[in-house]
Amino acid sequence: MRAAILYGQENIVVEDRPDPGAPAPDEVQIRVRAVGLCGSDLKYFYSGGVSGGIKQPFALGHEAAGDVIAVGRDVTALAPGDRVAVEPGKPCWKCPQCLQGDYNLCPNMYFMASRSRDGALRERLNWPANLVFPLPERLSYDEGALVEPLSVAFSSVRHAQVTLGTRALVLGAGPIGLAVAQFARLAGAVYVGVTDTEPLRLKLAQDLGAHETIDVAHLTGPDLPLAEGSIDVVIDTTGVDRAIAQAFPAIKPAGRLVLVGLNHELLPLSLLQIVYKQLTVQGVYRFKNTYPSVLHYLDEGQIKAEPLITHRFTLDEAEQALRMAACRSNAVKVMIEL
Amino acid sequence: MRAAILYGQENIVVEDRPDPGAPAPDEVQIRVRAVGLCGSDLKYFYSGGVSGGIKQPFALGHEAAGDVIAVGRDVTALAPGDRVAVEPGKPCWKCPQCLQGDYNLCPNMYFMASRSRDGALRERLNWPANLVFPLPERLSYDEGALVEPLSVAFSSVRHAQVTLGTRALVLGAGPIGLAVAQFARLAGAVYVGVTDTEPLRLKLAQDLGAHETIDVAHLTGPDLPLAEGSIDVVIDTTGVDRAIAQAFPAIKPAGRLVLVGLNHELLPLSLLQIVYKQLTVQGVYRFKNTYPSVLHYLDEGQIKAEPLITHRFTLDEAEQALRMAACRSNAVKVMIEL
Amino acid sequence: MRAAILYGQENIVVEDRPDPGAPAPDEVQIRVRAVGLCGSDLKYFYSGGVSGGIKQPFALGHEAAGDVIAVGRDVTALAPGDRVAVEPGKPCWKCPQCLQGDYNLCPNMYFMASRSRDGALRERLNWPANLVFPLPERLSYDEGALVEPLSVAFSSVRHAQVTLGTRALVLGAGPIGLAVAQFARLAGAVYVGVTDTEPLRLKLAQDLGAHETIDVAHLTGPDLPLAEGSIDVVIDTTGVDRAIAQAFPAIKPAGRLVLVGLNHELLPLSLLQIVYKQLTVQGVYRFKNTYPSVLHYLDEGQIKAEPLITHRFTLDEAEQALRMAACRSNAVKVMIEL
Amino acid sequence: MRAAILYGQENIVVEDRPDPGAPAPDEVQIRVRAVGLCGSDLKYFYSGGVSGGIKQPFALGHEAAGDVIAVGRDVTALAPGDRVAVEPGKPCWKCPQCLQGDYNLCPNMYFMASRSRDGALRERLNWPANLVFPLPERLSYDEGALVEPLSVAFSSVRHAQVTLGTRALVLGAGPIGLAVAQFARLAGAVYVGVTDTEPLRLKLAQDLGAHETIDVAHLTGPDLPLAEGSIDVVIDTTGVDRAIAQAFPAIKPAGRLVLVGLNHELLPLSLLQIVYKQLTVQGVYRFKNTYPSVLHYLDEGQIKAEPLITHRFTLDEAEQALRMAACRSNAVKVMIEL
Repeated sequence: MRAAILYGQENIVVEDRPDPGAPAPDEVQIRVRAVGLCGSDLKYFYSGGVSGGIKQPFALGHEAAGDVIAVGRDVTALAPGDRVAVEPGKPCWKCPQCLQGDYNLCPNMYFMASRSRDGALRERLNWPANLVFPLPERLSYDEGALVEPLSVAFSSVRHAQVTLGTRALVLGAGPIGLAVAQFARLAGAVYVGVTDTEPLRLKLAQDLGAHETIDVAHLTGPDLPLAEGSIDVVIDTTGVDRAIAQAFPAIKPAGRLVLVGLNHELLPLSLLQIVYKQLTVQGVYRFKNTYPSVLHYLDEGQIKAEPLITHRFTLDEAEQALRMAACRSNAVKVMIEL
Repeated sequence: MRAAILYGQENIVVEDRPDPGAPAPDEVQIRVRAVGLCGSDLKYFYSGGVSGGIKQPFALGHEAAGDVIAVGRDVTALAPGDRVAVEPGKPCWKCPQCLQGDYNLCPNMYFMASRSRDGALRERLNWPANLVFPLPERLSYDEGALVEPLSVAFSSVRHAQVTLGTRALVLGAGPIGLAVAQFARLAGAVYVGVTDTEPLRLKLAQDLGAHETIDVAHLTGPDLPLAEGSIDVVIDTTGVDRAIAQAFPAIKPAGRLVLVGLNHELLPLSLLQIVYKQLTVQGVYRFKNTYPSVLHYLDEGQIKAEPLITHRFTLDEAEQALRMAACRSNAVKVMIEL
Repeated sequence: MRAAILYGQENIVVEDRPDPGAPAPDEVQIRVRAVGLCGSDLKYFYSGGVSGGIKQPFALGHEAAGDVIAVGRDVTALAPGDRVAVEPGKPCWKCPQCLQGDYNLCPNMYFMASRSRDGALRERLNWPANLVFPLPERLSYDEGALVEPLSVAFSSVRHAQVTLGTRALVLGAGPIGLAVAQFARLAGAVYVGVTDTEPLRLKLAQDLGAHETIDVAHLTGPDLPLAEGSIDVVIDTTGVDRAIAQAFPAIKPAGRLVLVGLNHELLPLSLLQIVYKQLTVQGVYRFKNTYPSVLHYLDEGQIKAEPLITHRFTLDEAEQALRMAACRSNAVKVMIEL
Repeated sequence: MRAAILYGQENIVVEDRPDPGAPAPDEVQIRVRAVGLCGSDLKYFYSGGVSGGIKQPFALGHEAAGDVIAVGRDVTALAPGDRVAVEPGKPCWKCPQCLQGDYNLCPNMYFMASRSRDGALRERLNWPANLVFPLPERLSYDEGALVEPLSVAFSSVRHAQVTLGTRALVLGAGPIGLAVAQFARLAGAVYVGVTDTEPLRLKLAQDLGAHETIDVAHLTGPDLPLAEGSIDVVIDTTGVDRAIAQAFPAIKPAGRLVLVGLNHELLPLSLLQIVYKQLTVQGVYRFKNTYPSVLHYLDEGQIKAEPLITHRFTLDEAEQALRMAACRSNAVKVMIEL
């Protein structure tokens, strides 16, 4: 089969690889049809990975959808021919985190295209059946692949405890931020503001239902133009400390700051404000138990993934796709279809 | 009446002040008998206040106990002669925070000896009866006064969600830290570790039931000598960023960092760890609804306040008392008895 | 002023009453313009009250809106001429429940038209300003009055913990049930089913966005036609034990049953199912901190109150209005406009 | 090997059975040394089971401890010779409940001695290594076996949300109730009351630290002699509706009723009280993630299991043991040692 293999910094090769063997009893084999590119793929491509570097050549990509082409002997819920979305993290189900229901925090997790293990940019892969979800008829493979970043957003909104009456502010209008804004509205927020520096992205935020968009490229003061203490929860998808500092004063007493965006730097936070306003700062890592709900909302048209897609490439164009995905001002979500 | 009035930086005068008038219908008048000194008193004395500076001369002190000497006409639960502990923050009961039950976050709060308003270092004061709590017979005025810092600790342990099975680490063995350690044990923690740099304080922590004490004056590496991911919750009472950084790696996935200690500096936190471990960072500001429980535990001997008291002074010695309280290596809690 | 006074069972008289005096410093005086009739009004009218009986003649009605016509000297947020909705429960702000933020559970509550104290069916009343909320321009007095029952529904959905992904079932399509269904959708529920016996009400439920309506007048088996364990939360607005028993098997393991409907009888629940499925049964009493959010959703058109109104009467027709309100098959919400 | 096999109502035979084969890769083989008898064993013995009846002969018993005598090839955490306590429920780790962390609610659970599947009253059994926990040196096999009922109690106290300041009432002073009382104290409860009808059991409750015991065999009124609204949480271990009704008025507004005890009858609850007091009724089924903490508290002597044991028998005396366990006035916990 063909696969897009990362050999080192800015060195990706589309080449032949051996097919996977027969799926294990509880696995299915999938013919991958669509893979979305994500910030962590770019990180690997441009600088050798979020953590740990490249230990061995491996296939990038962890946002995937495709067709079931074979099933293991214990699998009853899926059959060859099923169109499916793939949850890319395979936990151990034995560690304390798994037993407590925090399987997204499993230290033994095999997560596609992380720690130099193969991701989804290959034609075929085997995966546990209970992490593979049927794609409703109305949804495309691309939409199926995007259930993964939508799941990160879904999980963020859950941790943000957005509910009826909540005023939410989303920092960053990339694929995650745009999905966070949609889920926050869907969860009943009375206000959803979105910040970014790119007009293209702010326009998308507005089209997808944000009550307000704020162009932070042209701020006049140190803070966002929001009343002090007017926001219940800020959800940061940027990882940029200045963005967070600008938003901090707007958080209400007993409010929340949810951190989804990543950065290697230390994040300097105002201890006085955290204590005086009794704030909660909540990290969010990936997601758990999100696929069925996300697929439902996509199918109902309550959440839109198509508008996030700005570019599509073939597997052979993987390098070109990665370079395009790095261009924040033109690209939002870049898909590889294979 | 006599009162200890702060006129400016390191300028405190014990002088005559007019008595308060008759208590309002829902107030009682209290003859103050004991006041504990706290870090915020020191801050005002040495550098002019935690925030805002000294706008007018005012009495310091907000940890108080005494005798009821008069009651307003609507007060039925208290009578002259009652020995009482005084909750020092008077909320407005009308703002959104009060209506939501977060009265400790009331922006209209009159908190003793803050914002240049009179505190408890005066012989008499009027206070709302529902913020004044009878002192059980076995408890001294000093213990009554210490219900206030014990309440900060109690609230911290609540926000830390310490319960059966919890492994807790307390940073700092001052009055708050030593009380946090006790309440954490009382709430069923299976491990309570305490850090400090002062042998006197570490000894106290041990005597009061800590499972382990860690002298951070002599660390050999960058982190505390604790297994990575072995602690459910770190409760910081120091406000010192290095202390928090040393403890960070010990926090478990899905664990908590509770911030009670204060500092004007920015607190640099590892964004990667907050996200990867999906941590919760929780600020805690003062307390609410704590007095009855704290008094119960003191009365039962399950929480000890007396061992925290290292020095006692008269009202006329207020300056001497403040200077002693600033001496971390000798003093833990300094009381003024009047 | 004119007022509709209940003298005894089925004995209501519209008569002249003295005007209220000047509002207290923190109160406003309101010229009442619309009052909705509720089940508890009917209970008083037909059988002498939910609990305690009629101890003295009093005005019925607790769902009210009107105009501010005078303000106390401390009131700054409202002015004569403001159109307002009135939160009908006045807590004491001093008891443990108030201090803990559960002001709806205040044992000293003055709730309009309960315990034989005057309600809103009178032309003028004085009320604390912080329980009186400006009506957005687009909303009618009738809609303002209905913020009260909508608040009961809002509170139920909160306690039901409806959020993204929730499957909810609402028992009863009266004013509360119809509002619960709307708020459940608004909070992101993926399924909202509604049961009733009246075609008129089921039709309304459908029009207002229920995914499914179930006519329980024609059930063929003992249970609702829903898959076992397919519902996260059942919200009962009927108080009818058979209705609850029919729905019980549909609740998921770890699911919830929220009880808002009232009845004097004992409610027989299956202990085996509560334990084996580890269910939570949650009572909900009135509401707290709901008015601003409910008004927002009404103003945005995300929640609809007008379709609930089937009849309108004048104050002089109060008796006729009450008799109509008792007719479940024709009436949903009956308003008195004055 | 020898095993105590239930063939039908009151028909238990101790006989030879084939040894289990080699343990699977992730299993260990255990030589059972102690088994505690529980109400569900009695239910099977006397009336053919809690639900479903006896479909095939099977070994009773699910409270077990013993020695590891062999380990599967993937097991690294345990070795032959280890003394261990056995968590008796084996979930599927694939269903929605398992994925959400509610593995105790797994519908595919193999729970020892339920649904006519073999329990622990046999000399040898194979079990997944991650459900087998090393017994600290100081603890006996009997104590190891009792980690199971202690876990039910631990889970109940967790669901009861007992914490600092809680006033708790435990209905029933059997093995579960006596352990609930201990854990409630350990979690910081300021009041733990225990009810029962048997002097032996009430005496034990007192010895184990209850603040108050209430003999309900000699009640003079319909309710317990407790002030109305004085209890935060009632934990019922009896399943007896009259016991629950007697305790109901004592529950505070916003309080909790936790149901652990079982009964096939319908439980009639006061709907008015549930709604007016906004109570939470919470079912608790078995437990999850409890063994390490329970073992810790036993090892530290903070929880006592030995005093619960009133009788010990050999495997050959299994029938006699069951008959003794049914005698509430003499027996509390009956052990079989083999």
